[in-house]
Amino acid sequence: MSDHGDMEHLGGVRALLFDVFGTVVDWRGSLITEITQITDEMGIDLPAAELADDWRGRYGPSMERVLAGSDPYVNLDTLHRASLLQLLDERGVRLSGETIERLVFAWHRLEPWPDSVRGLTRLKSRYVLATMSNGNVALLVDMAKHAGLPWDAILTPELMQTYKKNLDSYRYVISLLGLRPEQTMMVAAHPGELRMVGGIGMRTAYVPRLAEFGDSGQPVVELDTPVDVVCTDLENLADLLGA
Amino acid sequence: MSDHGDMEHLGGVRALLFDVFGTVVDWRGSLITEITQITDEMGIDLPAAELADDWRGRYGPSMERVLAGSDPYVNLDTLHRASLLQLLDERGVRLSGETIERLVFAWHRLEPWPDSVRGLTRLKSRYVLATMSNGNVALLVDMAKHAGLPWDAILTPELMQTYKKNLDSYRYVISLLGLRPEQTMMVAAHPGELRMVGGIGMRTAYVPRLAEFGDSGQPVVELDTPVDVVCTDLENLADLLGA
Repeated sequence: MSDHGDMEHLGGVRALLFDVFGTVVDWRGSLITEITQITDEMGIDLPAAELADDWRGRYGPSMERVLAGSDPYVNLDTLHRASLLQLLDERGVRLSGETIERLVFAWHRLEPWPDSVRGLTRLKSRYVLATMSNGNVALLVDMAKHAGLPWDAILTPELMQTYKKNLDSYRYVISLLGLRPEQTMMVAAHPGELRMVGGIGMRTAYVPRLAEFGDSGQPVVELDTPVDVVCTDLENLADLLGA
Repeated sequence: MSDHGDMEHLGGVRALLFDVFGTVVDWRGSLITEITQITDEMGIDLPAAELADDWRGRYGPSMERVLAGSDPYVNLDTLHRASLLQLLDERGVRLSGETIERLVFAWHRLEPWPDSVRGLTRLKSRYVLATMSNGNVALLVDMAKHAGLPWDAILTPELMQTYKKNLDSYRYVISLLGLRPEQTMMVAAHPGELRMVGGIGMRTAYVPRLAEFGDSGQPVVELDTPVDVVCTDLENLADLLGA
């Protein structure tokens, strides 16, 4: 039971926008499971966690090249495929085209954190729930069906052929919802994103996902920016917002 | 129980795209109810059905001006507001700004046909369900929450700032789903739209909604184009598609 008194300044919030990879779904654990399954089937030995981290590590730089205009826009499936091919090539690993596609589409089948479906289902009764993920529409639709995520709308910077660091993509999806930034709250496990969207007037909710990077050695990020809400998980967010 | 043998050529369909106004929701009955409620509250006498039909009648021409490039793109809420103001002005009816907005947003609160929610819920277990409506995202999201429509994705030609007669808008939303036209089926109560999208390779399902125009005197449209499926309502569509 929480006292909602300190949440009064959030009374105007109508829609919650969610970062998805890491915030709603466990990309790392899910990828490790899929890679292990494939290598077991093939009878080969590959370091699944190391591959997952390496693959994910190439995502930022490949988006940056699109944002900088040095690479043309392509969607996240296409970035994933290109970085996987590069990674396998560098490691001298050969996989069939079919296995490559199975791995690329593993991102469409990521598993939710244990609290995600229950938390979102409660929040949906009170708010419009939308994705705001670098995932492309097809990826996010498949993931929602696979994981049972009850989105009201699938929104993504793909709709303006860009990625999230471009703040215009947030402004655009907010306008599609017919709202002003202060009527929306960004929910994310990543302080950097919350700092950025706070700057355009969105409300912010931080949900630490300490297991996101597992045993990868990536240090736990500190919350180095003011946010409107800190919650332990999405069910706790529903508690805090009275949903 | 239906024999699905004749549906085998539809085995590749992955997503159903729905026309919404008239096909999924009863725009006319819902508007008449809202107008009657408002005029009762105000103690004035206005012909609700006539106003609803007149308002709806201005929608086609206003879209045509956008498609022809003679008017700039504005979303459907904005077209609805402009045509309502014009209509009231021509009839010498004066309403407050608040009442005008209540009427414009009545389009966000349209009621589903009795079979829509059950039919869509069954179809959702087997297919990706998306809107393909001239309604804007905000309108379609509000309507889905109001009416309980379980869409997987809200897609609309608003995403490319156009309206449905522009066939590129269908090609665009199909590409967002990562599909080819023949992997999608358009579900609509309007043969003209089905003829059009059949031409770009979409599969087609016709659901006659004989009550759409009620007692307006608008003649019932004949099915003057070949379609892949004719169903009596959306539950029957679920039967026919084995969902």
